[in-house]
Amino acid sequence: MTINKMKKFSGGLMAFATIFAGSSNIQANEPIIRDAEYYLLEAQNAEKWAKDDMAIEQKLESFMKKNGGKAPNIVYILLDDLGFGEIGMPDLDVIRGYKTPNISKFATEGLSMQRMYSEPSCTPTRVAMMTGRLPVRTGMVEAKATISGEGLSGKEVLLPEVLLKAGYTTSHVGKWHLGELEQSYANNQGFEHAEFPIHQQGQLAIMHKDSERQHIITGVQKNGAAQTFTLDKSFVADPSNMVTGLEQDKDGKLYEVDLKPGEQWSQAKYRAMNERYQTNTIKELRRLAKQDKPFFLNYWPLFPLSFVRENREFKTLNGGTVAESIVECDQWIGDILKEIDKLGLAKNTIVIIMGDNGPFMQYAGPSGQSDRIYRGGKADHLEGGVRVNAFMRWEGVIEPGTRAEDIIHVSDLYTTFARLAGAEKHIPRDRIIDGFDQSGVLMLGETHGRRDYVFVYEGTALKSIVKNKYKMHLPAPGENPIAAKIFDLYRDSREDRPMDSIQYGPWAGGQFANIAKRHMMRKMKYPDNKATYGMPYEGIQNLRPETKQMIELFKVAMMAPKK
Amino acid sequence: MTINKMKKFSGGLMAFATIFAGSSNIQANEPIIRDAEYYLLEAQNAEKWAKDDMAIEQKLESFMKKNGGKAPNIVYILLDDLGFGEIGMPDLDVIRGYKTPNISKFATEGLSMQRMYSEPSCTPTRVAMMTGRLPVRTGMVEAKATISGEGLSGKEVLLPEVLLKAGYTTSHVGKWHLGELEQSYANNQGFEHAEFPIHQQGQLAIMHKDSERQHIITGVQKNGAAQTFTLDKSFVADPSNMVTGLEQDKDGKLYEVDLKPGEQWSQAKYRAMNERYQTNTIKELRRLAKQDKPFFLNYWPLFPLSFVRENREFKTLNGGTVAESIVECDQWIGDILKEIDKLGLAKNTIVIIMGDNGPFMQYAGPSGQSDRIYRGGKADHLEGGVRVNAFMRWEGVIEPGTRAEDIIHVSDLYTTFARLAGAEKHIPRDRIIDGFDQSGVLMLGETHGRRDYVFVYEGTALKSIVKNKYKMHLPAPGENPIAAKIFDLYRDSREDRPMDSIQYGPWAGGQFANIAKRHMMRKMKYPDNKATYGMPYEGIQNLRPETKQMIELFKVAMMAPKK
Repeated sequence: MTINKMKKFSGGLMAFATIFAGSSNIQANEPIIRDAEYYLLEAQNAEKWAKDDMAIEQKLESFMKKNGGKAPNIVYILLDDLGFGEIGMPDLDVIRGYKTPNISKFATEGLSMQRMYSEPSCTPTRVAMMTGRLPVRTGMVEAKATISGEGLSGKEVLLPEVLLKAGYTTSHVGKWHLGELEQSYANNQGFEHAEFPIHQQGQLAIMHKDSERQHIITGVQKNGAAQTFTLDKSFVADPSNMVTGLEQDKDGKLYEVDLKPGEQWSQAKYRAMNERYQTNTIKELRRLAKQDKPFFLNYWPLFPLSFVRENREFKTLNGGTVAESIVECDQWIGDILKEIDKLGLAKNTIVIIMGDNGPFMQYAGPSGQSDRIYRGGKADHLEGGVRVNAFMRWEGVIEPGTRAEDIIHVSDLYTTFARLAGAEKHIPRDRIIDGFDQSGVLMLGETHGRRDYVFVYEGTALKSIVKNKYKMHLPAPGENPIAAKIFDLYRDSREDRPMDSIQYGPWAGGQFANIAKRHMMRKMKYPDNKATYGMPYEGIQNLRPETKQMIELFKVAMMAPKK
Repeated sequence: MTINKMKKFSGGLMAFATIFAGSSNIQANEPIIRDAEYYLLEAQNAEKWAKDDMAIEQKLESFMKKNGGKAPNIVYILLDDLGFGEIGMPDLDVIRGYKTPNISKFATEGLSMQRMYSEPSCTPTRVAMMTGRLPVRTGMVEAKATISGEGLSGKEVLLPEVLLKAGYTTSHVGKWHLGELEQSYANNQGFEHAEFPIHQQGQLAIMHKDSERQHIITGVQKNGAAQTFTLDKSFVADPSNMVTGLEQDKDGKLYEVDLKPGEQWSQAKYRAMNERYQTNTIKELRRLAKQDKPFFLNYWPLFPLSFVRENREFKTLNGGTVAESIVECDQWIGDILKEIDKLGLAKNTIVIIMGDNGPFMQYAGPSGQSDRIYRGGKADHLEGGVRVNAFMRWEGVIEPGTRAEDIIHVSDLYTTFARLAGAEKHIPRDRIIDGFDQSGVLMLGETHGRRDYVFVYEGTALKSIVKNKYKMHLPAPGENPIAAKIFDLYRDSREDRPMDSIQYGPWAGGQFANIAKRHMMRKMKYPDNKATYGMPYEGIQNLRPETKQMIELFKVAMMAPKK
């Protein structure tokens, strides 16, 4: 093991050398290609990592032996727009005016990853988790709210694809949000079973008559205002004119299931979709439990995002629509966990519950959410945008009731699960993988993490760098770098009092610049991919006339410049 | 019991009537005199309170029986400038970069009072806890940082005086900060044993040469800058020229113990004082444990307030001076708790650990503190100024690992402890008592609280009113009341997004105005006391020449206008 590790280490140094040599030889069985920062950390911590690796392998072997030689199942529950402190932390119930007893109980049964960094919004977080890469590298930084002909490239190698090769069976239920191209669909990106809406809640939760009636949105419905001067009806991205939820038939063909021709989208439809995904997750669990293969199951609910006050009794002290919905999700998750126990899966299943980015501050107020701890929310590079709760349970392996302050980025889950599944060799070797193997944090506990930095992008722009306890907000192009602000995250978690320059001037400023330079130099060898464009909605069997009309308009407009 | 309660309830209504009748008859054995809000709540909840009271009495009787007929001991640990989330909440360790394992463990052994409101700074919080009254009623709203000839009136009836009458023995160790008048000293306000500095850490932690050398303060030491134009040497309130720590001899006479004539105050002296108070608290525990009487012991350390980087290895990830000091206090408290266990006191002793107000934001940065959750800090009426951690343990009575979101004000501890000690009858009946009896929260749990409001004063100015989940920032005199801002504390814990006026306009604004009016009308019958002034430092046996000189200067200046 140590020898292997030493090889890996030399491999690392070799790869580091190639940054400067400009060589592009990629050979099979080479180590995973990393960003510069990885090699710097490996060079300084190889001995500890090797020692940890031995302990991890022992624990894994011991688990496999008990589990009939099989790798663990993985159930990944990803909650939308839930920042740090919003679930599973009962000491903070009083801040929010609602409780999440099921997730709080779950948190005591495993590990709380206290410095889990997501990306600042839904699509990039999902890209990072699924590809192990910074979204900017894949060209997929933000799925548009409307029909845009964009999607995650089929050339990306997603976690379910990696796990399939290692003998897993894979299933996805719920939000997908990785694009409208056929190659981007969940069923074409490694999920044997997949049911999902193509678009996100920007349409599904908001753009309908119930929302317009409650003053939440304006301009969607015809009766919301006169349409006297409307020439372009496609400007309003009414979900009734877009593809909603998809399911596969027995032959794997995709059908839209939520709307029939002429039907209008509504809050009731949104709720029904959410309820179905929860019910179907339980059905999937039952189906997967019967199979012989280990399984990977995504449950990505669209709730808690919810903006319409439905005609029901609200139960939280908060009374916000999202607050109420969080509590409902907590109950749903409670039922899923109960089913896992009932099916006898608890001992061989890793369950993760986490948020995907900070709160949707644009809807703060009636939603009941706010940036209660870290400043900022969804779409911000501030900690409030990228710090989320993340809890992981693995009975008999992860120590219950533990917390880790090690820095973890959501892309690390890709690499970590690949390793735990014995699928590390299927991780592609022709591109940079940003995810670190964080098995040490899970199996050996706090201080066994391997990452001490995070690059925080907003879309394609690198906005800040976290290193250890410090965070630099990068100066905008053209701004004097001497004005870049550096924050001590322990002393100033809200990033509102930059350190005095005397405290970092002579060292940290320049060091942060070096980190950014290394990162950018590495991109010269492994450039970011461009966005992937194409015709939306291909491969769907039952497009409605409304949707077909939108595609025609898409063609005349988006293709026109090509003539 | 029910009949008694009904009487109490009628008494309440009677008292409510007297607001309007203007009667001033106070008779012995009358119920405690309350603010208007109390009567309003009693009128609506009398039945539930009566039922709760029966359950509380049963539990108390059962405890007393087990405890040889004795009331419980009370150990009250009050930590300086520690707002909500700064101790005992491990889910927040990562926000701060330090851990408090002993207090965190303690928190799991009892009740966390999640909506404990302190006053916005040290003196008023201590006044409220000791008198059960809003500080503004006592005339003691802020002990000055310098020699000012001010102090808490001897006419106030403090908790230790109430408990003494019920057969307790009383002891105070540590910070006092209730004034420089002989009548204000801890030993003259009900503590049989008392050791304390008269002044606060504004001098003791900061105003010395070690602090000046580290750029923390300027203008204290002669070698800090030339004194060319200095005519008034008393302007610099050097603690070396003030009375520092006091102790009693066997006859109860007070002596200064921390400085000899000619000696200079320093960080080492500050540390020695702190270490002594911790050691002496343990000594006091041992002494008190041997006595037959139940005891009330205050441990009010001056730490964690600490601004000088001492010549030692800092251990926290945060590295701030206060952060380091919090961890040191946690260890000290751990030792005190161990001693309580060792002495067999855990089962008959209520232990409380809490902060006295929000963080000292003026020293944010090197101190390592900040307003991490609620906005604002010490001296602010914002939640960040008045929300503190408060944990209470009472083995066998308080359910371990519980939390309560009921609103509790620090003055409630006065009334609650008086009741638990069987000393309710010794609470004075000639003045308004603001403290509610919150025994229900302790003994029956969450939702058994009796308070739904808090008046937040800054000094003598009523700055905001909390009622239920809402908080109004009162308009400044002359401002149009229609502009008053109302916040939903669950949805906006940082009070930075006032509710839209449409959401509260027709009701809450006017309702808050009514609360303020009722409060002020009640003051017409029971006016606030004026501040109590007098000669500082009387009754101290060994005043140093330096201090005597300050008194002379005090006399010529402060008494001069009277001539």
